Amino acid sequence: MPYHIDIEPLTLSVKAESGDNLLEILQKAGVQIEAECGGQGTCETCAALILDGLCEIEGRKVDEGVIKTCRASVCADLRLKITDYRPYAGGTDFSVLPLEKLHLTPPGKFSPLSIVKSVKIDQSSLKENESDWGRLTRAAGLNDTAQCSLSVLQRLPQIIRENDGKTIVILSGFESEEKVIDLRAGDYIANYGIACDLGTTTVALHLVDLADGRIISTVSDYNGQIICGADIISRIIYAGKAGKLAELRDKVLNTVNSLIEKSVNEHNISREIITAAVFAGNTTMTHLFLGLDPAHIRLSPYVPAVKNLPVLTAAELNLSLNPQAPVFCSPAVGSYVGGDITAGVSVVELLENQGGIRLFLDVGTNGELVMLGDKWMMGCACSAGPAFEGTGISCGMRADKGAVDSVKIDADAEKIELKVIGGESAKGICGSGLIELTAELFRNGIIDRGGKFSAKSFAHKIKGEGSAKKFVLLDAAENPSGQEISISERDLANLIRAKAAIFSALRLILKMTKINFNHIEKFYIAGGFGRNLNIESAQKIGMLPNLPLKRFAYIGNSSLTGAYLALLYHQQRKNLHKIANNITYLDLSSIPDYMDEYMAALFLPHTDSKLFD
Amino acid sequence: MPYHIDIEPLTLSVKAESGDNLLEILQKAGVQIEAECGGQGTCETCAALILDGLCEIEGRKVDEGVIKTCRASVCADLRLKITDYRPYAGGTDFSVLPLEKLHLTPPGKFSPLSIVKSVKIDQSSLKENESDWGRLTRAAGLNDTAQCSLSVLQRLPQIIRENDGKTIVILSGFESEEKVIDLRAGDYIANYGIACDLGTTTVALHLVDLADGRIISTVSDYNGQIICGADIISRIIYAGKAGKLAELRDKVLNTVNSLIEKSVNEHNISREIITAAVFAGNTTMTHLFLGLDPAHIRLSPYVPAVKNLPVLTAAELNLSLNPQAPVFCSPAVGSYVGGDITAGVSVVELLENQGGIRLFLDVGTNGELVMLGDKWMMGCACSAGPAFEGTGISCGMRADKGAVDSVKIDADAEKIELKVIGGESAKGICGSGLIELTAELFRNGIIDRGGKFSAKSFAHKIKGEGSAKKFVLLDAAENPSGQEISISERDLANLIRAKAAIFSALRLILKMTKINFNHIEKFYIAGGFGRNLNIESAQKIGMLPNLPLKRFAYIGNSSLTGAYLALLYHQQRKNLHKIANNITYLDLSSIPDYMDEYMAALFLPHTDSKLFD
Repeated sequence: MPYHIDIEPLTLSVKAESGDNLLEILQKAGVQIEAECGGQGTCETCAALILDGLCEIEGRKVDEGVIKTCRASVCADLRLKITDYRPYAGGTDFSVLPLEKLHLTPPGKFSPLSIVKSVKIDQSSLKENESDWGRLTRAAGLNDTAQCSLSVLQRLPQIIRENDGKTIVILSGFESEEKVIDLRAGDYIANYGIACDLGTTTVALHLVDLADGRIISTVSDYNGQIICGADIISRIIYAGKAGKLAELRDKVLNTVNSLIEKSVNEHNISREIITAAVFAGNTTMTHLFLGLDPAHIRLSPYVPAVKNLPVLTAAELNLSLNPQAPVFCSPAVGSYVGGDITAGVSVVELLENQGGIRLFLDVGTNGELVMLGDKWMMGCACSAGPAFEGTGISCGMRADKGAVDSVKIDADAEKIELKVIGGESAKGICGSGLIELTAELFRNGIIDRGGKFSAKSFAHKIKGEGSAKKFVLLDAAENPSGQEISISERDLANLIRAKAAIFSALRLILKMTKINFNHIEKFYIAGGFGRNLNIESAQKIGMLPNLPLKRFAYIGNSSLTGAYLALLYHQQRKNLHKIANNITYLDLSSIPDYMDEYMAALFLPHTDSKLFD
Repeated sequence: MPYHIDIEPLTLSVKAESGDNLLEILQKAGVQIEAECGGQGTCETCAALILDGLCEIEGRKVDEGVIKTCRASVCADLRLKITDYRPYAGGTDFSVLPLEKLHLTPPGKFSPLSIVKSVKIDQSSLKENESDWGRLTRAAGLNDTAQCSLSVLQRLPQIIRENDGKTIVILSGFESEEKVIDLRAGDYIANYGIACDLGTTTVALHLVDLADGRIISTVSDYNGQIICGADIISRIIYAGKAGKLAELRDKVLNTVNSLIEKSVNEHNISREIITAAVFAGNTTMTHLFLGLDPAHIRLSPYVPAVKNLPVLTAAELNLSLNPQAPVFCSPAVGSYVGGDITAGVSVVELLENQGGIRLFLDVGTNGELVMLGDKWMMGCACSAGPAFEGTGISCGMRADKGAVDSVKIDADAEKIELKVIGGESAKGICGSGLIELTAELFRNGIIDRGGKFSAKSFAHKIKGEGSAKKFVLLDAAENPSGQEISISERDLANLIRAKAAIFSALRLILKMTKINFNHIEKFYIAGGFGRNLNIESAQKIGMLPNLPLKRFAYIGNSSLTGAYLALLYHQQRKNLHKIANNITYLDLSSIPDYMDEYMAALFLPHTDSKLFD
C-alpha cells in the first residue's frame, strides 16, 4: 500500500512505496530541488523540514527537524516542507542548467549542424575513372549539387590516397543544401560544435561533442562590451559614433573567441575540429556581433536589419573555429524580442507535461515575456533596466561569489540573516537578494507600500536622509570585507520600477488576450537572475503573480539551451524559424493603457493589493 | 524564274532571283565566307572566281575573272569558285569568332549567372515592422532560404534608406539556390560578367554586359604558364615539384586578372560590377587555375581531382572581380577531355541544321575529338603535340603577325607564293601554313610519302644533310626580316606524327562506333589553329578525311563560346553538366589497335592511300 508524501510549499502530493528514497521521489515528481553533491549526503542542498509523519534515516525513524532528503527513505505518510524552495536555487557560477533536469522531448532525429561521415573511397582504376570528388560524393551519399570550398578540393587528392581511401568527411546541411566543410584521412575524428548565448551582460558557451550531443564544457564571461554601456540602448547609441560599431563587434568577438580558446585549451581540442556554431542573442547583441548597424532598432518604427539570418561561415565572422564551419543564428521576432527569446520559447515547447496557457519570462538586463496558447504566441519586451542584474543599485552586483542572495529579517527579534554566494564575506547584493530583501523589509513594516522607510521598527538600522536614506544590513565594521551592505530608498525605487515594468507587461498581455492569471498553467522563468529567485518574495513585492508555487519553473539559460538544441537537431532549427514567425509582437509603448498599468504597479505589492491576496 | 548559283569547292547549288546580291546569297546559304569590310568593297576577302555564267557589277555584265561577291548581283545562272576557301579564314588576332556567324539557337530563356533587380523597398512603419532583409527579399521576390554574405547584411540598412528605398539587388542562382551578391542604392547599375577560355597556350576572355549578353570586349594573351612547359604533361610534371603548383596557379591567375584589368580599363568599368564568371579549360588547366594537384591526371588510372565543380566565389579564387561573384567552371568528361570540350560540344548542339552523325575536333596544343550521334556521344583525346601551334618546329610560330599561313608552290615554274599574316615580313610558319606547305611539297613531289625530300624537283631549294635536310622557302637574304624560312625533315616528321595522331584517333572512334567516314554529316573544327586551316591541304596530307568541303565548318574558339553561353543561360549550365555526363570517354591508349592505326597514318596521306582518293 503506497504512502502519501505531501510536499510544501508546492501543495503537491505524491504516492510512494516503503523504502523509496525521498530525494528520488521529489525528483521524479518534477520538484526542482537541487542536490549538488549528487545525493551523496555531503551537502545540504536537498534539505527539507518534517512537518508531519515520519521517515527513516540510516535505520532510525525520524519525525522532526530538517533532514537531507537524499539520506531518507519512506516508511510512512509524510508531510515535508522544502526548507528554502527556489526552483533550482543555489549552484555554481552563472546559470547553466543541466539539461537532463529539463525533461525535454528531443526535437526529432539527432541531426547536428555538422556531421562526420567515415567513408571508404574506392581507389580509382581504368574502369572506375570517376574523379576524386565524384567518388567522394558517391561514397558519402551526397547529391550532385553538394557544395564545398576551394580549400577542400585542393586537399582532396592527397587525403583520399593517404589511408587506403579511408576518409573522414565533415558535412553540413540537410536536404538540398549539402556542403563538405572539411576532409581528413583516416577512420575517426572527433567533431565539435559550440552553442552560445550572446547576452547583453554575459556570454555563455557550451562546447559540444557532435557525435552524441554531450556538453564537454560550459564557460561564460562578461560581454566585453559592458564598458561601452550597461543596456542595449546605451550600446546602440555607442555604436552610432564613428568607428564604434566595429569596436563593439571586436569586443564581443574577443569575448566569444576567448571562451572558445578557454574551452579548447581545457580539453586539448583543435579549433579546426569545431565545425559548427549556433548563436542566440537579443536582436541588438546579434547585430553587434555581426557588425550590423543597430541604429534602426532604436528609432521608430524600430526595425532590425535582419531577423532571419542566412547561414554564415566562421571565416566571415572571424570566429576561431574551422573557417568553413556553418554559423546559425537563432532568428528574432522583432527588434526587442530576439533570437534568445525564440530559443527560450523553443525550449518551453519541448518541455514535458505541456498544454494550456503557459508564460515564459526571461529576465536579464531586459525583460521579455511570451505567452503561449495552444495555437498562438504573443510576446513583448519591457525595459526592466539592469537593477535585477545588480547594476544601478548602490550595493548591487551580479549573482557571483560574495553576493548576498538571500535575506531573512525578523524585526521583532532585531535579527538579520544573510546568505552569501560561495559562503564568502559579503561584497554586495544580487538581484534575487534584492528582491528578498525588499520583500522582507516590506513584510516587517520597515518600508511602506511606496518603498519609503517608515521608522516603525528596526529604526537604528536606518541611516542617512532623503532619497539617500538607507537600511544597513551589515556595517562596514561587521563585514570581513570592510564594505557596508545597505539598500537606499533610491535603490528601492529602482527596483520597484523594474518589478513594475515586468508586472505591468504581464497584466497587459493578459488583457490583450483576455486571459486571467489563474489560467496560466505554467510560468517558466529563464535567465541568470531567475536562478536564485525566491518566488514567494517576488510575489510579495508584486513582481510575479500570486499563482501556486508549483506552477513556476525555472528553466535556466534557455537561450543557451535553445541554441544547444539547434546545434544538434535539424528540426529545432526549423522550429526556431517557425516560432519567430508565429510570435505576435506586442509593442507595449503603443498601447495607451501601458502607462496606467505601470503607474499602478509602482506600489508594494500593487495599487490593487487584492491581486496579491 | 530563279537562277542557279553553283558554288565551288563546296559542290553547293542555291537558287537566286535577278538582282540579288551575290555575297548575301552566299551568306544566306551558310557558306563561311569572310567579308572583313562588311560588304563595302574595300577588301578582297569575299572574292570568287567565275567558272561559268555571268553576273552584273556596277551595271556591267562580267563573265570571267575574280570578282568581289559583295559588289556583284545575279543576272543569270552562275558557277563560282571561292578563290581561297577556308571556313572563316583570315581575320585578326586570335580565334574569336563573331557569334552571329554561328547561327546558334539560344539555349532557353536568357538567364545570366548573375542578374540585377531594381526594386523599391517599402519604408518600414509601425505596421510594417518587417526587418530590412525581410523587406528586401520580399521586394526582390526571393524565397526564405535566400543566402547572402555578411558584407551584404552589413551594408543593407544604409543602402535601402539612401535613395527612398530604391535599391539595386545583384543576385545569382536559380531555383532553390538564390544568393544576394551585392546591393547598391539607386535605380540602375550596369552588370557585367566574364567568360574565359583557359587554354594551354592562350587565355581568351569576353567581357559581357549581362543585361543583354553583348560582348563588350574580347582580349587574349599567352597563358603565363608557357615558360613552365609547352604542353599539359610538362605542366603536370612541373606542378609536381615543391611549391610549383602554387607558382603555376599564380601565373595563370595573373594572366586572367591582367586580361580583366585590360578589359575594365578599356571601358572604364569598375571590377565590383563584374559579378559572374564562367571558365572553360581542359582538365589540367582547370586544376592548375584552382590550385588543385593535377598529378593523378598523368598517372594511371588517370583520374582528375574533380570534374563537376561546385560553384565557387571570386574571393576564393583571388579573381579581380566582385568578391562574391559566382564562378562556374565548365565540367569535364575526364582527365583528357575537359570542360573546354564540353563547352565546345554544347555549341555544336546549338548549331542550326543539325542531325545525323557529327564530329567535333578541337585542335590546340592537345587534340580532342567528340563524335555526336542522335542519342550518344563518344570522345577521346590524342596527343597531337604542339606542332600545330608552331612549337617544336624549327621555324614554327603561332598564327600571329609575321606568320606564314599560306604557301603555294609551283615546282615546274620554280615559283613559291607565301602569304604572311598582317602582310609583314615573314618571321616563321604557323600551323595552318605548315599544313599547306607540307601538302604543297607533297603535291609537287618535293617530298615522298614518308615525308623525306626526294631530289626530283626544286633541288636547289633543298639544303643540309640527314634529318637536318631542309627546304628553304625564303633565304635570309631575300627576307626583309633577315630570317631564313625553311622546313626540315625533322619538322616534317613532327608534323606527320601530329596529323597521324589525329587521323588515327578519328579512325578508331569510327571503328568503335562502326561508322564510315561518309556518315559524318558535319565536321566541326574548333580551336585557334583551325582558323586559318586550308581544309584541302589538311586532306591532302591525310589529317582530315576526304569529305566534301561543305561538310566542314569552323566554329572558332568554341570553348570560349560555350563559356559565354553558360554565362548567359541557366539551361546552358545545365546542358554542360548533361553533356559531360553523357560523353563516353574512349581511352585510346587502352585500345590494342591504336598503335597500328597510328603507324599506318605516318605516311602521306596514309598507308592506305585509297582512303584519300
